[in-house]
Order: sequence, then C-alpha cells, then structure tokens
Amino acid sequence: MKPLVLILMGSDSDLPVMEETARVLDAFQVPYEMRVSSAHRSPARTAELAAGADGRGIKVIIAAAGMAAHLAGVVAAETCLPVIGVPIGGGPLNGVDALYAMVQMPGGIPVATMAIGKAGAKNAGILAVQMLAIADTRLAAGLADFKRQLAEEVAAKDEALQLARARD
Amino acid sequence: MKPLVLILMGSDSDLPVMEETARVLDAFQVPYEMRVSSAHRSPARTAELAAGADGRGIKVIIAAAGMAAHLAGVVAAETCLPVIGVPIGGGPLNGVDALYAMVQMPGGIPVATMAIGKAGAKNAGILAVQMLAIADTRLAAGLADFKRQLAEEVAAKDEALQLARARD
Amino acid sequence: MKPLVLILMGSDSDLPVMEETARVLDAFQVPYEMRVSSAHRSPARTAELAAGADGRGIKVIIAAAGMAAHLAGVVAAETCLPVIGVPIGGGPLNGVDALYAMVQMPGGIPVATMAIGKAGAKNAGILAVQMLAIADTRLAAGLADFKRQLAEEVAAKDEALQLARARD
Amino acid sequence: MKPLVLILMGSDSDLPVMEETARVLDAFQVPYEMRVSSAHRSPARTAELAAGADGRGIKVIIAAAGMAAHLAGVVAAETCLPVIGVPIGGGPLNGVDALYAMVQMPGGIPVATMAIGKAGAKNAGILAVQMLAIADTRLAAGLADFKRQLAEEVAAKDEALQLARARD
Amino acid sequence: MKPLVLILMGSDSDLPVMEETARVLDAFQVPYEMRVSSAHRSPARTAELAAGADGRGIKVIIAAAGMAAHLAGVVAAETCLPVIGVPIGGGPLNGVDALYAMVQMPGGIPVATMAIGKAGAKNAGILAVQMLAIADTRLAAGLADFKRQLAEEVAAKDEALQLARARD
Amino acid sequence: MKPLVLILMGSDSDLPVMEETARVLDAFQVPYEMRVSSAHRSPARTAELAAGADGRGIKVIIAAAGMAAHLAGVVAAETCLPVIGVPIGGGPLNGVDALYAMVQMPGGIPVATMAIGKAGAKNAGILAVQMLAIADTRLAAGLADFKRQLAEEVAAKDEALQLARARD
Amino acid sequence: MKPLVLILMGSDSDLPVMEETARVLDAFQVPYEMRVSSAHRSPARTAELAAGADGRGIKVIIAAAGMAAHLAGVVAAETCLPVIGVPIGGGPLNGVDALYAMVQMPGGIPVATMAIGKAGAKNAGILAVQMLAIADTRLAAGLADFKRQLAEEVAAKDEALQLARARD
Amino acid sequence: MKPLVLILMGSDSDLPVMEETARVLDAFQVPYEMRVSSAHRSPARTAELAAGADGRGIKVIIAAAGMAAHLAGVVAAETCLPVIGVPIGGGPLNGVDALYAMVQMPGGIPVATMAIGKAGAKNAGILAVQMLAIADTRLAAGLADFKRQLAEEVAAKDEALQLARARD
Repeated sequence: MKPLVLILMGSDSDLPVMEETARVLDAFQVPYEMRVSSAHRSPARTAELAAGADGRGIKVIIAAAGMAAHLAGVVAAETCLPVIGVPIGGGPLNGVDALYAMVQMPGGIPVATMAIGKAGAKNAGILAVQMLAIADTRLAAGLADFKRQLAEEVAAKDEALQLARARD
Repeated sequence: MKPLVLILMGSDSDLPVMEETARVLDAFQVPYEMRVSSAHRSPARTAELAAGADGRGIKVIIAAAGMAAHLAGVVAAETCLPVIGVPIGGGPLNGVDALYAMVQMPGGIPVATMAIGKAGAKNAGILAVQMLAIADTRLAAGLADFKRQLAEEVAAKDEALQLARARD
Repeated sequence: MKPLVLILMGSDSDLPVMEETARVLDAFQVPYEMRVSSAHRSPARTAELAAGADGRGIKVIIAAAGMAAHLAGVVAAETCLPVIGVPIGGGPLNGVDALYAMVQMPGGIPVATMAIGKAGAKNAGILAVQMLAIADTRLAAGLADFKRQLAEEVAAKDEALQLARARD
Repeated sequence: MKPLVLILMGSDSDLPVMEETARVLDAFQVPYEMRVSSAHRSPARTAELAAGADGRGIKVIIAAAGMAAHLAGVVAAETCLPVIGVPIGGGPLNGVDALYAMVQMPGGIPVATMAIGKAGAKNAGILAVQMLAIADTRLAAGLADFKRQLAEEVAAKDEALQLARARD
Repeated sequence: MKPLVLILMGSDSDLPVMEETARVLDAFQVPYEMRVSSAHRSPARTAELAAGADGRGIKVIIAAAGMAAHLAGVVAAETCLPVIGVPIGGGPLNGVDALYAMVQMPGGIPVATMAIGKAGAKNAGILAVQMLAIADTRLAAGLADFKRQLAEEVAAKDEALQLARARD
Repeated sequence: MKPLVLILMGSDSDLPVMEETARVLDAFQVPYEMRVSSAHRSPARTAELAAGADGRGIKVIIAAAGMAAHLAGVVAAETCLPVIGVPIGGGPLNGVDALYAMVQMPGGIPVATMAIGKAGAKNAGILAVQMLAIADTRLAAGLADFKRQLAEEVAAKDEALQLARARD
Repeated sequence: MKPLVLILMGSDSDLPVMEETARVLDAFQVPYEMRVSSAHRSPARTAELAAGADGRGIKVIIAAAGMAAHLAGVVAAETCLPVIGVPIGGGPLNGVDALYAMVQMPGGIPVATMAIGKAGAKNAGILAVQMLAIADTRLAAGLADFKRQLAEEVAAKDEALQLARARD
Repeated sequence: MKPLVLILMGSDSDLPVMEETARVLDAFQVPYEMRVSSAHRSPARTAELAAGADGRGIKVIIAAAGMAAHLAGVVAAETCLPVIGVPIGGGPLNGVDALYAMVQMPGGIPVATMAIGKAGAKNAGILAVQMLAIADTRLAAGLADFKRQLAEEVAAKDEALQLARARD
C-alpha cells in the first residue's frame, strides 16, 4: 500500500523514540515510510524527500530532531503538506533547545509541534491520523474507538487502585 | 457557508492576536466561526462547543489561551478533530507558561502547538488550511500560490535592499 | 468514615508520589478517597468527580499531574471547593511544565500550588489539614503538635551532628 | 467586625497588586486586615504578626512578596494557619525568582502558591474565601454565585463578539 | 571590489541590527554584500546563495535570524565556508529561542554563534575580520589598532569619571 | 578555641556538601561551629542562633539550604554579620530555585551568594577566610599561599598533559 | 582619606546602578574609589587595578558587569581580597547571563554575588561595610543603627497604610 | 610541525570532551597544541599563553570551560586571533551557565560559541579548519570531502533502516 505519512528523523539514534509514532500508525493501519535524513548533513536529500512527498502520495510529514532541531522547519519550507515536529530530548538542554527550534517558527511556515520525546512521538502519530480522518470516515471511527479506550483504561486503573486500597 | 474551522479563545482580550488567524482563513476563503469560551470560567460551554464541533461540520479546531493555557488540551480531550494551539504571551512569563501548558500534552491527546503570539496565530490559520487541503485540491493549489508569494516577497525585499544600498 | 479529602491523580504512575499525601492524612486521621482520573483521557469522569465532590461531603480536593498538568485547573473549574495542585516531575522538563501549567491560573479560578514532586505531595496533605482545621479544633491541636515535632526533629539532628563532630 | 484574613505584604509598593485581593474579600464581605511587614527588614514584627494571628481570630494568612520572596515561608513557619503566597513580579526576573522562592517549600511547611502578580492576588482572595466556606454556608453560596457569574461573563463576551462579527 | 563577506538576514526587519556588522566591515575596509533570504520562505534562494558563495569569492558568511532561527544552520549545511550566526531578539522569548536554535548545532556543522542582538552583530563583523586576518597582515594590523583603541576608550571613560567625581 | 565562623544548614542532608566548607576552614585553621537549623521547621532556634552569633564571637555566618532556600536570608535578617549563602541542588529544579531564593535579596539585607553545590560550599569557606583576613595578616599570608598553590596545580596538570601527549 | 573599597565597573553605562553602592558607602563614611575598567577591552589595566588594590590599602573590591560578566571573576583571580559581584541587567536576557557568569565560579575563587541591578548594588555596599565592620566597631554600631532604621521604616509604612485605610 | 591551533581548557577534567576537537584536527592533519590553563586559578599563565599565541604561529584558539566559563573571553581579551569557545556541561545548570558566560560577550570582543559539550567540541575543530581553509586549498578540499562523507553516512543509515524494516 502506498504510504500516506512520511516519518523523517535527523539521525537513526532517534529511532527508539519514533517507533512510538510507527506503533500508532500501525494500529490505525495507516501506511507510512520511515526515513533518515538530516537538515544539516544531507540537506539536498532532505529537500528532495520533502519537496517530492506530495507527488508520491504522502499527505502528512512527521519530522523528529534534537538540539538545534531544524529538520521540521526545513521540511515545512519545501512542502505545502502539514508538517508535525517531534523535539527529541536527551542532550544537555533536555530538549528545550529542540522545542524552541521547532515551535517558534516565523509566520508563514507552521510546524505542528508535539511534546518532547516519546509522548510527543506518540501524539504525532495520533495527530497525523486526525488529519487524515478529516476525509476518511474509517479513521474517524477508529479515533472515536481509541478515545473510548483511553477513558476505559483510566477507569480500569482507578478500579484497580480502589481494589488495592480496599485490600490493605 | 457552514464553518469548517472553529477558532476558540479563552478571553476576548486574545482577539487582536487571533485576528491573524481569521485573516489567513479569509484569504483562503475557508469559512470559520470565532467563539469566546474559557476552560476554567465556562467549562461546560467549552466542553459542549468542543464535543459538538464535529457534528456541526467543523473539521479543525484552533484554541488560543494564555498563562496556564488549558483550553487547547481541554478541547482536545472532548473531540477527535485535530486541535491547533496558540499560546498567548504578554504576562509576566511572556507566554512560556502558555507554551509549556499546551505543547507538553501527555501521550494520547495531541495539541498541534504553534509559536507564541501573532506568528503562531497566523501559522494556526495556515496549518488549518494545510489540513483541509489534504482533501481539497482548490486549497492545495492556493497553498502552492501562497508559498510562491512568500518567496517572491523575500526576493522583493532583497531587491529593495540592494537598490537602497546602491543609492548610498 | 466519609472521606473529607479527594486525592485525584492523572495517572496511576503518580501513586508513589501521592502516597506522601496519603501518609499525612492517615497520620492526622483525616478520611480521604484516592482516585485516578485524567483531564485529557477521561474528561467526563473527571468533571463528574469534581462537580460531585461537594455533594459527597468532600471539603478539599488535591490534584496531581505531570507535563501539561491541566487536572487541577480542570477540577477547579468544576467545583467551589479549594483545590490543591501537586506538579509531578520526572519528564524532560523536570516538572517545570507541570508547575507553570498549575500555578499560572488566570484570575477567578485558583489552584493552591505546591512544590514539584514528593515535598509538594506531603505539603498538599498538610495544607488540606490546615484548611479543615479552620473549623476543627482537634486538627488544629494536631497541627500544633506536628509543628513542635518538626522543630524537635531539627534539634535532634543538630544534637547528633554535635556529638558526631565531638567524637572526631 | 473582627478580621478573618490577614493580608501581609513585604513592601507598600506591593499594594496596587494586593488591592485585587482586598476587592475580592470586600465583595464576599469577609473582614480582613492589611499589614506591611518584611521578612528581612522587620523579622521580629513579622514573626509576631504571624504567630499571633491565630489568637486574634485570623483564619487564613495571605502573604505577598517579590524577588527572593521569603515572607510567605517565614509566616508559614510561625503559624499553623493556612498560608497563601502571591509572588510579585516586576523585577529583572519578572517574578520567576519570587515564584520559585514561594512554591518550592520543603516538606512540612506548605505555602499555597498563586500565579505571579494581579491574577494571583485576585485568586488568593478567592482561595481564602473557599477555605472559609468549608465551614460557612453563606460563603459557599456566594462562591457558587460567583462561579455562575464567571460563566455568564464569558457567555456575554462571546455574544458580543458574535454581534460585532455579524455587523462587519 | 569583490565582496569577501556575505551578510544574510532572514528578514529586512533585521537590518537595523545587522548594520552594526556592516559598520565594522566598512571600518576595516572589508568588501561585503548584504542579502535578505529566508530559510523558510525562500529556501531555494537561500541554498543557492549559500552554495554559490565560495565560487563568488566569499570567504565568510554571517547569518542573522530570530525565533526558530534556522538560517545560519541551513547556510552552514550548504557551504564549507565558516558561518557566523547572530541571534535576533525582540520576540516573546527575547532571543533565547534564536540563540538555542543557532548554537546547539549537532556535530559536523558548526555555526559560530554570537551574542543576541546588536552586540552580537558587531562582534560578527569583528570575528569575520579576525578570520580574514589569518592570511591578511593589513587586517591583522588593523585589529591590533582596534584592540588598542578599545583599551584607550575605557581609559578615557575612567578618566572622565575621575574628573566628574573630583568636581563634585 | 572560640569559633569565628558559624556554618548553618537547613537539613543534615546538606552535610556532605558543607564538609567542603569545613575542609577549607580546617586547612586555614579557622575555628568554626557547624549547626543544623531550619528557617521553616525551627524558626525560633534559627533566629536565636543568628541573633546571638555576634555575641558568641562569630564573625561570619555561612548558611546552606535547598529548594525555597530562605535560611540565609532569614539569618541575614537577624544579624549585622556578613552572611554567605550556599544554594544546595539535587531537587527537580537542580538548585536554580535555591539560587534565586538566595541571590535575589531585596535592598538592605545582602546575602553573599556562592555557586550551587560543592563548588559553592568550598568557595564559601574561602570567602569567609578572605573576610577574616581583612584584619588578620596570618590569614592574608595563607590566602596568598593558597593562590600560588592553585596556579601551581594548574601548571602541574598542564605538564602532566604535555607528558602524556608526548608519550602517545 | 585613603579608600578602603574599590568599586569597579565594566562600562560607564553601569554608573547609574553603581551609584547605589556609592550612596551606601557615603552614608557609612567609608572612603572608596570608583573606576571604569573592562575585563575584555582593557584586561591589563583591570589586572593591574585588581592586583595592586591590596597594596594601595583597599580591603574589599566590588565589581559590576553585564552580559557575559567576567569582571568580578577576573578581578578575584588577581587578588586575595574579598570580591563582591553585582550582575547588571537590561540586555535581552535581563541579567540572567550576568548572574550565571558571576555566581557559578569554580571552586577556589569565590565571588560574593548580589541580586541583579540596583538592589544588588545597594547590598554590595552594605556587605562591604559588614566585612569592614568585622574589625571596626564604629561600623558595627552603624550597621546596628541601619538595621533598626530598616525595621522602623517598615513600621512607619505599615502605620501609614493603617491610617489610609481607616480614612477610607 | 609548528602548531596552528591552540586548544586551551580550564581543567584537565575537560579533556574527555576536548579529545573530540583533537580528533578532528588529527583527521585534517592540522598541527595543534593542547594546554591546561585556568582563567581564575592561573590568570597570568592564561594571559601569557593567549597573548603569545600569535607570535608562536598559532592562527586559531579554542577555549573550553564550564560553570562561569570566563576562559574564552579572557583569552579573546588578550589576542586578535579568532577565539572559539566550547561550553562544558555536567554541573547543576547543565552547561547553560557556561553557554551564557561565553556567548553573551559584549561588543568588541567576539567568542565564536559552539554547542554545549562533545558536539560543540567536535564543531570547534571543524570551524578551526574552516577558518584555516580560507587560505589553504588543501584544507578546503578536505572540508568538501568531509561534507560529502557526512551526507553519505546519512544515506547509509537510511538504507540500513529501509533494509531492517523490509526484513521485519
């Protein structure tokens, strides 16, 4: 199946974080491709991947990078597709550098910025599905199920806590 | 025409910022509604506006708030539609509080966070158009035009600078 | 005995921190209930728990959450009871996100914010007892004892240090 | 009428901010006294005011200070009454120093910390009323009215916005 | 004379700051060109300007940008010439966003980052002259003069202060 | 010998840090006492220790505390002796809270603030010796020796590095 | 009279802030000299001023600087006298850069760091007097008077507030 | 071969970080010397090393330091050679102190600041080579090779990821 989402990361060291995104897209059966390309070390390749995405049928791009995280902004500069950014933490500034370098995009070129690290990577997948669901009722229904599940999981955890406390 | 985008703000003092969003949607001829509702002062109204948006034909929600900016997260909790957040600055923490309170959403409930203030408000409008353009070729073409225009404006400014410097 | 305090946490992973609160309430023999409910994943349940607390005899609500910590604010929006917030740390921003998302509440809806993590959780319990003690002389006496005890513990530690240094 | 709330400020320059607190207490007809006393410049007077508050019938203390804002903590060390802290901004660190110096109290001595500046001062008043309302049904009813009013004000602002936009 | 330095700015609103750089280069009689090009709004033009600089005889590139300041990094990705970055302040985060987005470049692609704003713009000019002076004894002599002058200016200011205080 | 320096810490958990101070005073043969007393948990004892220090022959007070570190300020409020503050790190805010709560003292009551943690504790000892050396030529001579030693240690480390690199 | 305190500032633009220090020393009749010398622009002069201070009879050095504020540390490296640092604010980072560049001195070379700006400048004067008072009973008595005065001023402001509120 | 680059570090504990710089210079066959000298503990030695560098044939100086990192600025004050600064992390402020103390140099004395820690140390080496390459075509060619290599490494990592995903 042709990929609808392009997951780009600046370095293969970001893979353990971005597998959270992949897991969400797998669960919603949204086909995606996952590529390593750096805004700084392979700019031509990155520009090409971004500029050509639309033509290859990609609908949403997710870009992850750490430190002076330019990847999402550089990709957004080359495409009219919506771009979601995941700031990667772990360095001395704990990802605040990556967060600021992504979210503070100047007017004209948005990057939909997520939380730092794994929570953000997971949410990038969900947001991509939400965007695709605008015109895909199967996905819209899947999201409604997912939301119900989230609430049920919380309820189950609460029940488990009540049981545990009753036992004490 | 039925609105496709809901612009929500926590207070009418956010209006001068959020008019940047409205201007973008007007330019792309995307119908929208603009509402004031607070996560904290009118929670029932906010939940209702958010939960009912999908049924009213809304495809994207944009929420703006300052300080402990819960509005976008609270809205995202009530809907499966994509939610874009605009942190409003101006208080003693200059919007860092609003930024952190929006972007650091836990896994499961994404908020597509924009830059603090007017740049973010403008980009919220563009991102909403990008999301709608996934299934709307007219908007996709409009975005390509807009992107060309951005580049031309930069070129024009550069030319003006060269002329000004040549005259000196 | 009917609970007077409701301890709410956004996730059961907050339990090891919030047991500090429970320990304080146990020590003062203040009955409480402890519930898991998320502002984002189970908003209806959270609103219900908050809105119904007063009717169930709850006098004080303590809400703990991490990251974009909306739980305390969302609860405060639904009740007139005093709400104490405990920001949970541990993520990439070490709880500064949770602190700002709790303490910077807009005018109209206060959240009594505590320190990040275990110290804050312990203090949430004490503050709850202080609030209840306004109209409960047994608790007021207990607090006076507790304060004396704190001072005695410091004195004992100082004495132990003097002994240890005298021995050297 | 004997004051139930003591509003303490470290300097009379904090008065314009703390009048927000007074306004709330006036509206709820809660009697209060307002005193200037500094943790650093008049420590004995501050300790005396704090330690004697309970005996004078005070039920809640609100302390406001800027910079290395020790006032609330110093007061909390001298009393078992609940202490609410309002960090004052305006200096080079915009009140982040005052916020950290108030909210990060060690375990044992809570300070119920509010937002920086006027929003926090207003909320300090409301929180004090909420604490007193635990044992005062008149105040509890007043708070319910106040909450309704907040929601109505938001609704009115939204209506005004709809009218303004319809006219355009 | 063929320019040796390329001053690039992301927006013509950065001109008042970057004139500090021009002033330094003028004083040292180092020919330069000054161009407006955005990493996000005109990426192709920016890549072309950067990649072609070496061939046009440029020896040093100075790039200035604000907010999520990607310009210097994007330019550094396209050239082997040394790239100096000037973070522009003025937005809600006062240039900390631009500073982090410039200085935290990943290994492989350095950006020589200067202070935020005018001090940084001036220093960018001096650093460019220092780089060129490695192989240009006239510039090296000029820098030695400039350093002497700096010290003399301080001495003159000190003398003026002594006179003023003696008069009092 | 009567102690000239009082080392106060808010908790005995600060002891491993403050032993750095003790080590310096031991090396300079400056007699000192080391006490545990908390600004918040034992305010009366702390005020007494601070207010009585001068009368007991103490010339300099060093106060260490973490989180909302009020100890140094509270001590400075009670004495005219110079007070040196050591912010203790280790909590979620890594000592930035303690630093701000110490260094940002309002006009009138100075606290001579050191670096966070062990480096600061060591420097507190040296600064105390420097203060005492104003009127003690033996200590002044000792400080000159110490300064020479610091420079010699650096020279020795440099020599060791040259040897190690020559061997490679 | 021979100066006992050397007030050094990195730039004459720091004079309006450092006049707060001078005012304190004037009030306590402590003779001082006030010099402009930069750690970066006139390093030899600065080293000379610092290294020669002791020989000229100076007992305490106060150094003020902004941005990457190296002056206090550079001075402390050249002398065994106690060095007090005043971070100057006003730039894009509001003095946090100057604060960190002063207070975070490595072990071996303390700088007694004050608050950012005028409050810190005033306190630098008081701390210098406190250091001199270790061996000067006239100054010790003066400090005790000053402390009483501070407390009386607070009392007077409180009284004024009570009168103003009684009149309303 | 006579060294062209001087690598200075404030402490031998910075060696593991600065070996990244050495590795780059080794790879480009640029001769360098590596010295330990502290701005604070051995100021005379540091000033001498910096002031004499030019005369010994050094073309670029790289200075690394942590905490209140004055080394690069102090060196830049003594020489007209370009100075590159590497902020060392690891302390309680994670290197933000060192970053601010380096990058925020006042106008007149630039320090080319790199990222915190190892990435910055590596980039310091590359930037030094870029500066030398202005007048050395062998180095310029080497840099072009290096850039190609960076891009090829990214391509190889991407290919490896595609293979790994195809296998799953």
